[in-house]
Amino acid sequence: MRTRFLAPVLILLAPAITADEGMWTYNNFPSDKVKAAYGFEPTSPWLENVRLSSLRIASGCSSSVVSPEGLVLTNHHCARRCIENLSGLLKKDFSHSGFTAKTTAQEVRCPNFELNQLVEITDVTSKVAAATAGVDVAKYSAAVTKASAAIEKECANDKSVRCEVVSLYRGGAYDLYKYNRFDDIRLVLAPEESIAFFGGDPDNFTFPRWDLDFTLLRIYGPDGKPAKTPHYLPWAMKAATPGDLTFVAGNPGSTSRGVTTAQLDDDRDGRLPDALLRWAELRGILTEYQMRGAEQKRHSGDMLFGVENSFKGYTGRREALLDTGFVNKLRSNESDFRAKVKANPELEKAYGGVWADVDKLVEKQAALRSEYDALEKGFSNSRLFTIARHVLRWSDERNKPTGDRLKEYSDARLPQLKAELLSNAPVYDELEITNLTFSLDKLRRALGPDDARVKRIFGKKSSREIAVAAVKGTRLKDLKTDKYGNAIGGFRDEVFNSGINAARPSQDSMIAFARSFDPDARAIREQMEKEVQGPLAKDYAKLSKARIALYGKSYPDATFSPRLSYGSVKGYTDSKGKEVAPFTFIGGAFERATGNPPFDLPKSWIAAETRLNKSVPFNFVTTNDIIGGNSGSPVINKNGELVGLVFDGNIDAFGGEYLYDGTRNRTVAVANAAIIESLEKIYGGQRIVNELRAGASARATAP
Amino acid sequence: MRTRFLAPVLILLAPAITADEGMWTYNNFPSDKVKAAYGFEPTSPWLENVRLSSLRIASGCSSSVVSPEGLVLTNHHCARRCIENLSGLLKKDFSHSGFTAKTTAQEVRCPNFELNQLVEITDVTSKVAAATAGVDVAKYSAAVTKASAAIEKECANDKSVRCEVVSLYRGGAYDLYKYNRFDDIRLVLAPEESIAFFGGDPDNFTFPRWDLDFTLLRIYGPDGKPAKTPHYLPWAMKAATPGDLTFVAGNPGSTSRGVTTAQLDDDRDGRLPDALLRWAELRGILTEYQMRGAEQKRHSGDMLFGVENSFKGYTGRREALLDTGFVNKLRSNESDFRAKVKANPELEKAYGGVWADVDKLVEKQAALRSEYDALEKGFSNSRLFTIARHVLRWSDERNKPTGDRLKEYSDARLPQLKAELLSNAPVYDELEITNLTFSLDKLRRALGPDDARVKRIFGKKSSREIAVAAVKGTRLKDLKTDKYGNAIGGFRDEVFNSGINAARPSQDSMIAFARSFDPDARAIREQMEKEVQGPLAKDYAKLSKARIALYGKSYPDATFSPRLSYGSVKGYTDSKGKEVAPFTFIGGAFERATGNPPFDLPKSWIAAETRLNKSVPFNFVTTNDIIGGNSGSPVINKNGELVGLVFDGNIDAFGGEYLYDGTRNRTVAVANAAIIESLEKIYGGQRIVNELRAGASARATAP
Repeated sequence: MRTRFLAPVLILLAPAITADEGMWTYNNFPSDKVKAAYGFEPTSPWLENVRLSSLRIASGCSSSVVSPEGLVLTNHHCARRCIENLSGLLKKDFSHSGFTAKTTAQEVRCPNFELNQLVEITDVTSKVAAATAGVDVAKYSAAVTKASAAIEKECANDKSVRCEVVSLYRGGAYDLYKYNRFDDIRLVLAPEESIAFFGGDPDNFTFPRWDLDFTLLRIYGPDGKPAKTPHYLPWAMKAATPGDLTFVAGNPGSTSRGVTTAQLDDDRDGRLPDALLRWAELRGILTEYQMRGAEQKRHSGDMLFGVENSFKGYTGRREALLDTGFVNKLRSNESDFRAKVKANPELEKAYGGVWADVDKLVEKQAALRSEYDALEKGFSNSRLFTIARHVLRWSDERNKPTGDRLKEYSDARLPQLKAELLSNAPVYDELEITNLTFSLDKLRRALGPDDARVKRIFGKKSSREIAVAAVKGTRLKDLKTDKYGNAIGGFRDEVFNSGINAARPSQDSMIAFARSFDPDARAIREQMEKEVQGPLAKDYAKLSKARIALYGKSYPDATFSPRLSYGSVKGYTDSKGKEVAPFTFIGGAFERATGNPPFDLPKSWIAAETRLNKSVPFNFVTTNDIIGGNSGSPVINKNGELVGLVFDGNIDAFGGEYLYDGTRNRTVAVANAAIIESLEKIYGGQRIVNELRAGASARATAP
Repeated sequence: MRTRFLAPVLILLAPAITADEGMWTYNNFPSDKVKAAYGFEPTSPWLENVRLSSLRIASGCSSSVVSPEGLVLTNHHCARRCIENLSGLLKKDFSHSGFTAKTTAQEVRCPNFELNQLVEITDVTSKVAAATAGVDVAKYSAAVTKASAAIEKECANDKSVRCEVVSLYRGGAYDLYKYNRFDDIRLVLAPEESIAFFGGDPDNFTFPRWDLDFTLLRIYGPDGKPAKTPHYLPWAMKAATPGDLTFVAGNPGSTSRGVTTAQLDDDRDGRLPDALLRWAELRGILTEYQMRGAEQKRHSGDMLFGVENSFKGYTGRREALLDTGFVNKLRSNESDFRAKVKANPELEKAYGGVWADVDKLVEKQAALRSEYDALEKGFSNSRLFTIARHVLRWSDERNKPTGDRLKEYSDARLPQLKAELLSNAPVYDELEITNLTFSLDKLRRALGPDDARVKRIFGKKSSREIAVAAVKGTRLKDLKTDKYGNAIGGFRDEVFNSGINAARPSQDSMIAFARSFDPDARAIREQMEKEVQGPLAKDYAKLSKARIALYGKSYPDATFSPRLSYGSVKGYTDSKGKEVAPFTFIGGAFERATGNPPFDLPKSWIAAETRLNKSVPFNFVTTNDIIGGNSGSPVINKNGELVGLVFDGNIDAFGGEYLYDGTRNRTVAVANAAIIESLEKIYGGQRIVNELRAGASARATAP
């Protein structure tokens, strides 16, 4: 790998927390800082209600409860897969037409949709430390997994509970997060995608914006009735205004604020461009696939959206890492940290050598990446392949104690895995074949046609032949479910639950294909874990200790677990020097509309134009520190009321992966008034508006 | 832009020429070096016959005359567009089936195919210098263009001649290259693409290889009869063997060996990844487009091949620039150069400040690139758009003196431009729409939806709507040609020749679309030329003078003009330490075949398997220094005979853009024996074999 920058460090900035920075854990929330900055100090009950009202969407988003009858608000793009799956199952294109349940009876269950409510955090650092003490570095990762699995198993004694040991501060601490698990989630109301994602990819990650990116869901209990949810965020009847203190409660997915500059360089030259090139090609394939017909356009829309979204996000990260000013701040932070360690003989002895070790590990990681991506990660776009690999691996892993299994098969994670695999989410052969062909082409390109594994996988066949045979022949599509979407038979259910092995071999085409290189994929994964991830975690645990010793405890890198950030409603001056006001209004959408995708307003909006109040706030920005995973998070005022719904960050927020810069980094949200306006005047959602108002006034009049 | 590497320079290598390095001009060929290294000194007549036998393919390849009756040998991939165009015109898929003309009467004219024979080189450096003396830096580029156009006009007094002023040593010298121009070129014989490009993209740029990448063409005279070609390369009747001295005569397209490290950094972070991301997406689109049907697969094949080829080439270049060892050599070359300049007060005064100036210009170039690429370069994949833009621009430019026009409209360049535009190469609406939609999407992404130009171009329309309207409505498809492919009427011919202007407006849909942003495209092009390219050329001219003063005259960067390189047949040790033998044999293709693309042998080969001599050499490697543009070059032994046909470089040759490394950099060629074997036993090409043998023995017995 290439030599790193040795750029002169011009400005020495201590890695101190800047104003509004941080994705804080609930057990280390800096209420004092909030009070100092904004004159309001969140109390424990305040924090508790926010935590219990903010639900994680297990598949990768955030949401919140907004009524005592289990009504849940999230983004349209977070419920997109549900909307698409229901469109396939019910033979109506709800992405295009929108969906309104006029009564609770019309609310329809989303296949494979799980919500998590964080109910307890327990520090298990010492337990993990005890279990990994003296363990060889190559076995460190496995030892952490084993210790975590044991802790999780003890905790998750019930299908209604989900337990996860979260590695915080990149291995510096371990906390056990216990969640209530809700898996009967039904679709209540969704606007048309054209207004939810108005401006499409061109406007994505920008501001000003005019997006009605919301969807309403409802939690149902085991009795099949709407759940009672005493913890919820009352709907604010007064709109937010500039300068207002705002909290965002959600699940930021992942950040890299604690990594060394060696890793930044590898991100810039390896990880990010590798992923971008893959996505660029897949984007091209899917864009052209959409031309096959209306049905293909519909069923590939979610995947294309995901690819474009990721592409833009990584592009922004790469650009941040190519910006000298930005990178110099990160380098000076590291210089300051290293100088302080060096100045302290005790710290220097314990941690001074860590950076050089990380350098070597990052180099190793870069060397293994292409094989790892091709063999272990490269087929995840095919749902049937994903199912087949899990069937295959679970057949082996089931015979091991939970702690010895691959992480995703631990007892604590199995219920979610089963829900995902054994859901009636529709499968589209044509799209599966397209994805699998692409993954095979990429695999052969990564390893080369003369690689022994490639020769074995391909034999005399082409990528497409292999893909067609695997997809067409597989019985994994055969699954029976009850009306709640629970698996009750069919080949997929049977083979997953009974396992396959020497005694019960499966000749299924997709399973056989997955088997044809599973030992290779497992081998590279094991090598990556033993030689890179484990040792890196160990090194980062050391750096975390040094950092806490020198700078005190701060917030950990994002881990897709609940966090709370604070900030305020605030415009900004963009990189070209233009002043950007914090609010847009409904009228602006009509001005921006061209009638053509992605700037086309739905018919319902055009019909309602004269009825709508065009001066109602539509979208707004705040200084809250967020990242991908926070989509669907509520924006909460100091009264604990919901004033908005996070759905994006602006362009300047991309660098937030590495560094928070409050001058321009902004969270983008739907104003709750725009939701009410559309429910009342466009979507026939008066019963929902009534429910929101009743919830708000119940809380307001509560003792 | 980011700060550059400041890596410690470990090994100080003087930028001396290494063994076998160099793409030499014919008027500065180092015969003495060849003699010192290989004991053979090419004489003037020897060089003259090679030069006059080696023809440039104007559209971007090389070739050679191999018989006194105008028979021309080049790569299948260099004639691919001709083969595809004829497939469309004659309604038979010759890419799939191959093509054999059993008699000269069956030889078919390639639409838009021009060959150039270099007949004279004249040093015009002082003329250009005189014309540009004292010119302001912003006008330097235009002044060079004007001076060149005047020189070219004086030279090219006849349609049968092509004259080009070539900027050598990045502006350090200017030579006038005068070519004979042949434009009635007919297809004689082409194998099936599956054997010409056996191994497809996976094997592209690798070795060992088994590709029969040849096609035979013939030059016809103005009388419509095969041309008499007294200068040709006789076919070697004895195969090359390891260690043999080899010459490669061809037209390397472009290299960056004389650029500063600032430009290397910009290549690594900007130019190369930008292009790669664009191609990755286009590759995805075209790959999926191929699924639309057999006809679409056929007519998009050439474009997909081009994109994949470019993608792999740039990937290799980027990887070279991410390789510390490789880059350190380049940096130490620059350090040595700068130190020597600094040590000489006179040179330091004249040239010491140039590097800092280049740094600024490269930064400016990076800042303008995205707009320049989107507006001026981004639509070249659409043939109809290209025609429309030329029609439009030529309408304006025709009213100016030749030297004041945009470069491509100079009197000297017009005949080739007209031949390209007014050729009967088929146009495929469906593919045109796909390409134009992509270019529009990319334009909007590059400039942003709020850009005033984007708003004007798009109005209320989508990319696809604009593309469909422009493609479906245009009359530019209307062209009449005679049986030789010369334009003799139709809208395209008329509008190009008569021009459009206020008095004669054209309402044609594609011309109107091109017009909708032509002023914007011209503006960014002018800015790029004035603020970057002109000043850069001026700076590089200075650096060239300093380099020649310090190191003597060497070879200039490649400029897609005739060059000659020398080397020898030689295997190598690859980057993984594996020994690679210099030859492969016909039997190897049968071993590698899987029956599936891209490893499928054509039926003709399978049928001929028992007849073929499997120990005939198939492909081989030499140390000759080449780059893209050299495809189709003859490999010549010291007797001046053709022993092979260059069609590729190996993986290690990618870095050749920046630096020649003779330890692994290899040229890949088809052995001429394999061509004979296939002509005799597979393609019914006995009349060609006879012609080749007759030519060889005529030369052997000549006085």
